Amino acid sequence: MIHKKGFVRRILVEPLSLTNNTADAQRLEKCLLDELSADYIRIPLPILKKLPSNLRLWEFRAKAVLFKDRHSWILVDLLNPVSDNPVLGTAVDIGTTRIVVSLIDLETGFEIGQKGFDNPQADIGPDVLARIHYSNKNAGLAELNSLVIDSVNFNISALCKEHGYKKEDVYLFAGAGNTAMTHLFLGIQSIEIIKEPYIPCVNIPDTQPAVNLNLDINENGVAFLFPNIGSYFGGDLISGILFSDLDQKQETCIMVDVGTNAEIVVGNRDWLIACAGAAGPALEGGVSKMGMTAKPGVIDQVWIDPDSRDLMIHTIDEIKPIGICGSGMIDLAASLFLSKRIDISGKFLKQACGEQLFEKHGINHFILVDENHSGTGEPICLSQVDLNLLTSSKAAMYTILEVIVKNTAGLEFEDLKKFYIAGTFGSFINPVSAISIGMLPDIPLKTFEVLGNSSLGGAKQLLKNPDAFERIMKIRQSITYIELNVNQEFMNMFSGAKFYPHTDSSRFPSLQNKI
Amino acid sequence: MIHKKGFVRRILVEPLSLTNNTADAQRLEKCLLDELSADYIRIPLPILKKLPSNLRLWEFRAKAVLFKDRHSWILVDLLNPVSDNPVLGTAVDIGTTRIVVSLIDLETGFEIGQKGFDNPQADIGPDVLARIHYSNKNAGLAELNSLVIDSVNFNISALCKEHGYKKEDVYLFAGAGNTAMTHLFLGIQSIEIIKEPYIPCVNIPDTQPAVNLNLDINENGVAFLFPNIGSYFGGDLISGILFSDLDQKQETCIMVDVGTNAEIVVGNRDWLIACAGAAGPALEGGVSKMGMTAKPGVIDQVWIDPDSRDLMIHTIDEIKPIGICGSGMIDLAASLFLSKRIDISGKFLKQACGEQLFEKHGINHFILVDENHSGTGEPICLSQVDLNLLTSSKAAMYTILEVIVKNTAGLEFEDLKKFYIAGTFGSFINPVSAISIGMLPDIPLKTFEVLGNSSLGGAKQLLKNPDAFERIMKIRQSITYIELNVNQEFMNMFSGAKFYPHTDSSRFPSLQNKI
Repeated sequence: MIHKKGFVRRILVEPLSLTNNTADAQRLEKCLLDELSADYIRIPLPILKKLPSNLRLWEFRAKAVLFKDRHSWILVDLLNPVSDNPVLGTAVDIGTTRIVVSLIDLETGFEIGQKGFDNPQADIGPDVLARIHYSNKNAGLAELNSLVIDSVNFNISALCKEHGYKKEDVYLFAGAGNTAMTHLFLGIQSIEIIKEPYIPCVNIPDTQPAVNLNLDINENGVAFLFPNIGSYFGGDLISGILFSDLDQKQETCIMVDVGTNAEIVVGNRDWLIACAGAAGPALEGGVSKMGMTAKPGVIDQVWIDPDSRDLMIHTIDEIKPIGICGSGMIDLAASLFLSKRIDISGKFLKQACGEQLFEKHGINHFILVDENHSGTGEPICLSQVDLNLLTSSKAAMYTILEVIVKNTAGLEFEDLKKFYIAGTFGSFINPVSAISIGMLPDIPLKTFEVLGNSSLGGAKQLLKNPDAFERIMKIRQSITYIELNVNQEFMNMFSGAKFYPHTDSSRFPSLQNKI
Repeated sequence: MIHKKGFVRRILVEPLSLTNNTADAQRLEKCLLDELSADYIRIPLPILKKLPSNLRLWEFRAKAVLFKDRHSWILVDLLNPVSDNPVLGTAVDIGTTRIVVSLIDLETGFEIGQKGFDNPQADIGPDVLARIHYSNKNAGLAELNSLVIDSVNFNISALCKEHGYKKEDVYLFAGAGNTAMTHLFLGIQSIEIIKEPYIPCVNIPDTQPAVNLNLDINENGVAFLFPNIGSYFGGDLISGILFSDLDQKQETCIMVDVGTNAEIVVGNRDWLIACAGAAGPALEGGVSKMGMTAKPGVIDQVWIDPDSRDLMIHTIDEIKPIGICGSGMIDLAASLFLSKRIDISGKFLKQACGEQLFEKHGINHFILVDENHSGTGEPICLSQVDLNLLTSSKAAMYTILEVIVKNTAGLEFEDLKKFYIAGTFGSFINPVSAISIGMLPDIPLKTFEVLGNSSLGGAKQLLKNPDAFERIMKIRQSITYIELNVNQEFMNMFSGAKFYPHTDSSRFPSLQNKI
């Protein structure tokens, strides 16, 4: 199956005639502009140099590898039309913690494979802040840049090899990351991102020859980094919006990326409002940070046994538990609340918890798994401090949702046609649990849809569909970005949301018969 | 004096504020687009990399070095606004025989200096044909390319040094050459230029980073090569049209470049018709080739002494004559005709020539300078064969002018408001002599205007005036290029023009009282 409207096109240039003395390059240009219904295309010099002999050898047919920037199309390479050489692209989610590379066949649009690996910059600094500070010292920027570029090169090459391809088969690179990661990837100064008034160096990076970024793909390859809206709303989110099709929906939808920060976009094809939330102290070290990273042995699901009312657990790979991850934590809090082991203010109830509760240094601890069943030999516990943190985080999330949906967009939660949950962490959240603790609004379950790695998804979508390019630019241009204002009103709303599920329990009608 | 609308602009980017979180690059972009009243500008990565610290260091002021391509403006470099570092451009006439480099201060538009040198490719082949054939063998193209690039680099550097500048001060390169020279300069295949149906590789070369062409100027510099219309109508002529302002004239004018070939453009601001003339055998080894290249001792002027009726000569640098150049040859033919030493068919008249005529191998030779007055010790003669060649050449020139002005444009010579003579050779032609022999039409002398090196002139104009870029593209686009059709009608017209001044002497009324 050939993807006829993708970035690879089979073309026939107008052959020679005595009545048309137009140069080869201009006939190629006209042919491509007709094919693309476009006004401008750039043809790089290396392609021109061999154009006359190639066109004649190929009888004026060719396979054109194309890409775009804001100003024009770009002819990336011109290939022998009868050659079976693959033409690949690579979509990359440039995460702060983890990077995922996907290999796409640009002629069919099919994904060949995927590969995830830890961002090696983490050795220098675990978070964006530490890395930006490091980048501002001596050769720090060059070092951080090399680390990420080298690891991406290594993994693209390895991914190609695994599937029987060569890195030279890769012509297009589409990368999505947050604003800081994008700056470090491009090797540009990023210190202003974290200094008031928090101005990135660039919002819209132009398409670059891949070689300018030291990306080791085809020598004629080009690289595109998703644009950002500001220091705290990056290309990964623009990519996510593209992937969710939020910008094309007739009815209003919402997308929430629950990562280290909470990033929220609400809107439809006519308007988009976004807020990203270093939402004051409440979300710092938010939900996702409390738990462990998902890996074998980590508790990812908790539920109440209907008969015994005991708390049941599930671990990744179903081996003995070694800890709990964020989604497990939300399940656990929901189970504790629904089984009345905690009260509406999120405090452990001694009687209901029974022997599972013990006090240490004056702080209550709830034993979820005792030492006999734990994979570590130690019991797996949840302290009142942990639970308070979770309570704050879930309250912050609900408050931010309330601010953006109700106060800013002037809607009710019920007006949302779809509630997309993006991000790796979000993928594992059970919406029922999240509603039960009052983290997500009590809307019909079918409204919720998990997007998975939407940053990668958007980048893949761009490689498959040239029209996505204009959508990306339009999303970036049209979005209204609001700074979350942590004022008295916010704090009042936040206080109400710190209850289970909320001081105003009428907002959560589905819980009425569960509690 | 600062040239406010040139390629160097002093700008003030919107400074930081808490209410505008637009990235540095996008604020710079907006500032430049406002300044230029433009829609698109490309900002290269190397400028981005240092943008945040530079903008803050310079308090958001900067000196922007700009250029264009067909698709957008290009920010070539961003400089410290208070630095006095010069910002130069270089305009280059890339001639087949001779190359001329001009150094321009881009801030004032003033020319700093000029330097001419022989095109070193001449060692490989004297003409375009030989070089193209050579370029098609093994490393021939690379060799020819290096020869011209190295010589241009050497002379730009030398010219800079002579005037106290550095090659790094040069940011823009604008080169105009014929189609073959342009291809060899770009290092692209040119063999198809001389193979039917005579298709160049490229008509409109895009603006390139200078480093891509191995041009040794500022590392961020860019290079532009004038576009061509076809294999026989090159960028040097487009540059000449720009220089003559033919495309902006209300009344119809003509420009004739009398070089190795005759190239003619007639038109005004509404239309332009061009023909370039490998006009069959008649112009091969045309007028300019018959004589010597202008140098000291070469006869450049000939006239009739009003009293003695003797032929008088002038040599370059007024030293003893060693030969005669093309313009001297036209003077000589005019003098021979007006003094009735030749008849209307261009044959020597024995009686009128007297002792100055002698026969050798059955061919008449006219002694212009005897051995006693010659700088070579040999007499300087004009044979009947030489004269016949000149007759053919002048007839071909007149016929081509007749074809394009009368048959194609449907005008009379009298309708031409201006008659521009371009090209180095053309600079020395005396229009009175050219009219006397029937080479140029008999129109008022004030109509004729010598342009000099119009190819260089147009390139200089581009560096001084960004608007010239669109004019160049418009000239190229709008010009109607006609192939000279050497058919029976042409041959009939040609036969009539082989007389002195013409079989139809009524076309040359100004000669009536001279003959």
